Amino acid sequence: MDLQTLNTPAAVIDVGRMHHNIGRIQAHLDALGVRFRPHVKTTKCTHVVDAQIAAGAQGITVSTLKEAEQFFAHGIRDIVYAVGMVPAKLGQALALRRQGCDLKLVADSLPAAHAIAEFGRTHGERFEVWIEVDVDGHRSGILPDAGLLIDVGRALVDGGMVLGGVLAHAGSSYEYSTPEALAAIAEQERSRTVRAAAHLRAAGLPCPVVSIGSTPTALAAENLDGVTEVRAGVYAMFDLVMHNIGVCDLSDIALSVLTTVIGHQEEKGWAIVDAGWMAMSRDRGTQRQARDFGYGQVCTEHGDVLGDYVMSAANQEHGIVSCTGSPDSGIAQRFPIGTRLRILPNHACATGAQHPEYHAIGEDGSAQTWPRFYGW
Amino acid sequence: MDLQTLNTPAAVIDVGRMHHNIGRIQAHLDALGVRFRPHVKTTKCTHVVDAQIAAGAQGITVSTLKEAEQFFAHGIRDIVYAVGMVPAKLGQALALRRQGCDLKLVADSLPAAHAIAEFGRTHGERFEVWIEVDVDGHRSGILPDAGLLIDVGRALVDGGMVLGGVLAHAGSSYEYSTPEALAAIAEQERSRTVRAAAHLRAAGLPCPVVSIGSTPTALAAENLDGVTEVRAGVYAMFDLVMHNIGVCDLSDIALSVLTTVIGHQEEKGWAIVDAGWMAMSRDRGTQRQARDFGYGQVCTEHGDVLGDYVMSAANQEHGIVSCTGSPDSGIAQRFPIGTRLRILPNHACATGAQHPEYHAIGEDGSAQTWPRFYGW
Repeated sequence: MDLQTLNTPAAVIDVGRMHHNIGRIQAHLDALGVRFRPHVKTTKCTHVVDAQIAAGAQGITVSTLKEAEQFFAHGIRDIVYAVGMVPAKLGQALALRRQGCDLKLVADSLPAAHAIAEFGRTHGERFEVWIEVDVDGHRSGILPDAGLLIDVGRALVDGGMVLGGVLAHAGSSYEYSTPEALAAIAEQERSRTVRAAAHLRAAGLPCPVVSIGSTPTALAAENLDGVTEVRAGVYAMFDLVMHNIGVCDLSDIALSVLTTVIGHQEEKGWAIVDAGWMAMSRDRGTQRQARDFGYGQVCTEHGDVLGDYVMSAANQEHGIVSCTGSPDSGIAQRFPIGTRLRILPNHACATGAQHPEYHAIGEDGSAQTWPRFYGW
Repeated sequence: MDLQTLNTPAAVIDVGRMHHNIGRIQAHLDALGVRFRPHVKTTKCTHVVDAQIAAGAQGITVSTLKEAEQFFAHGIRDIVYAVGMVPAKLGQALALRRQGCDLKLVADSLPAAHAIAEFGRTHGERFEVWIEVDVDGHRSGILPDAGLLIDVGRALVDGGMVLGGVLAHAGSSYEYSTPEALAAIAEQERSRTVRAAAHLRAAGLPCPVVSIGSTPTALAAENLDGVTEVRAGVYAMFDLVMHNIGVCDLSDIALSVLTTVIGHQEEKGWAIVDAGWMAMSRDRGTQRQARDFGYGQVCTEHGDVLGDYVMSAANQEHGIVSCTGSPDSGIAQRFPIGTRLRILPNHACATGAQHPEYHAIGEDGSAQTWPRFYGW
């Protein structure tokens, strides 16, 4: 198999770019003296995760217990499930720990802490729990100076569980696009999480792990004093949202969707392609950013960016490719039926999830099938 | 298995509502005297398609050749692949026809018609081809009065292929929301497609099939003179986009995502749930409609609509549930951790695609697993 013989639409990974991206973040965090724990939700693909670990990553982050099960079966023991634990999932978590998985849970409330401790005691299991800290009002977590932080820590310890540390995710970093703003939100993520850890320790509670991260803050961080590990996911592929934020070049984006031109509406300057939102995802993450790429940036089959051509609209299995400036009346000659193009996605996590497998393209154009999974 | 024991997030089908929706469109089209060919891209699920055929549907519409392969393996022969044919996929289409599948192809250009005819002659296969007609400028197709229509028809017939008919899809029907406007676009879809068929016949070309359809126009059509069959897909499930268009009640929506409350930000009036965009899809189809439901309408576990509560934001595996009016400061008491909710989706095709299976809930709350497939 090679690039030229793949059926379309297909999710394609440029393996050289992927290794470059993986090496870049690892070198940055090595230099800052912290461990790196990649988030596998972006690719859900053992081939990619093997490359991340070979480059120096220690353990993984998951967004579902299915990811934990799949990667534990693949041989990875050190896993943090970075979504607030809900009582009904404790049986699934227990089964993983009983099989030898060093699974860490997350809680940000007293009801969750009590439920974990009660279930753990009932089943003779000392769950390790990390407390989620809210560093930017983005989503979940306890404010670093809130008394609730200590109450939750104490409920876990008094309940017989292992308080493993604190965890934060500066999801609001996606809203910035200058080096200064990114460095500032990275420092806010670091300092608030470290402060939460200090509060726990001052209250006589253990807090060995201080875990933070998002792709923008991980790459923008200049100082990680007090942090023990960083988490990030999308950096391995990058995407147009990350490009608009300013943490990668278009030529760093390792994931694209290979597609074929199936028709035209010449007077409108449209080429119709066989990748619609089913292949790209419905993610319109660049819609409110500096540059709106529609459903994606058009490139040649070999990955060279075609300046002003984007997928401007999408139905389920149809995409409309057009020029962002004035309509290209010669588009049928430029991209005749059968022309193969590659589309860089807005959001690599969302686009990857639409595909049962990646096609990993080597420097010589050869294609390997890398399966990925989905569901819960 | 029953509703109460399903893991979350999960895609749930209310079987009673589904049968009601399937029966409604079938009765409407039976009364108008046309055949009905459901589009299986919405569910990609044999259980749903079996119910559609049991209700009277004749043949199916597919958006990918994988759908054709899967449903042909399930025993369905009469299939139209309603996406413009691209030369590289002709081998796959040929294999299906050689196995006995009555697969119909679609073309809207001379290059595609010539490619199909040439490939067919080379391999001794008389492909049946339908010509796509553009009835509303929405996407693909040839304008009904364009001379190109006759040229393509003649290229197919002279090339030794079977010209099976014309096919149109009034995708712009999604932009309307009054009965009058929907009836008008339905009539436009009908009259323009019938006119295209008349032009072909006047030129001495065959045109046995006149196929039109979208869920809004199929339900709004009052007269289908000259039409031989209608196609529609999302009607079996319905969704919030269809509700805003005005073709279903909220209580008709058969698909929802079951989710569990995992935390709160009380001062913001947020409940955090374990269904994010991975479970709902990134589809924001109601964003520009009369009522924006965010990522979905919140219901109780048993499917009763909870008025002003929507999923207002979503990350990959986190959803934020909030009240569209003023923040609900009592949300943690209203929806404690562990509360199970159901979220009606914006777009049933996109939400279903995120899930490996549906859980079909009967009147008694029992749950059956109905697998669905994805990919190409």
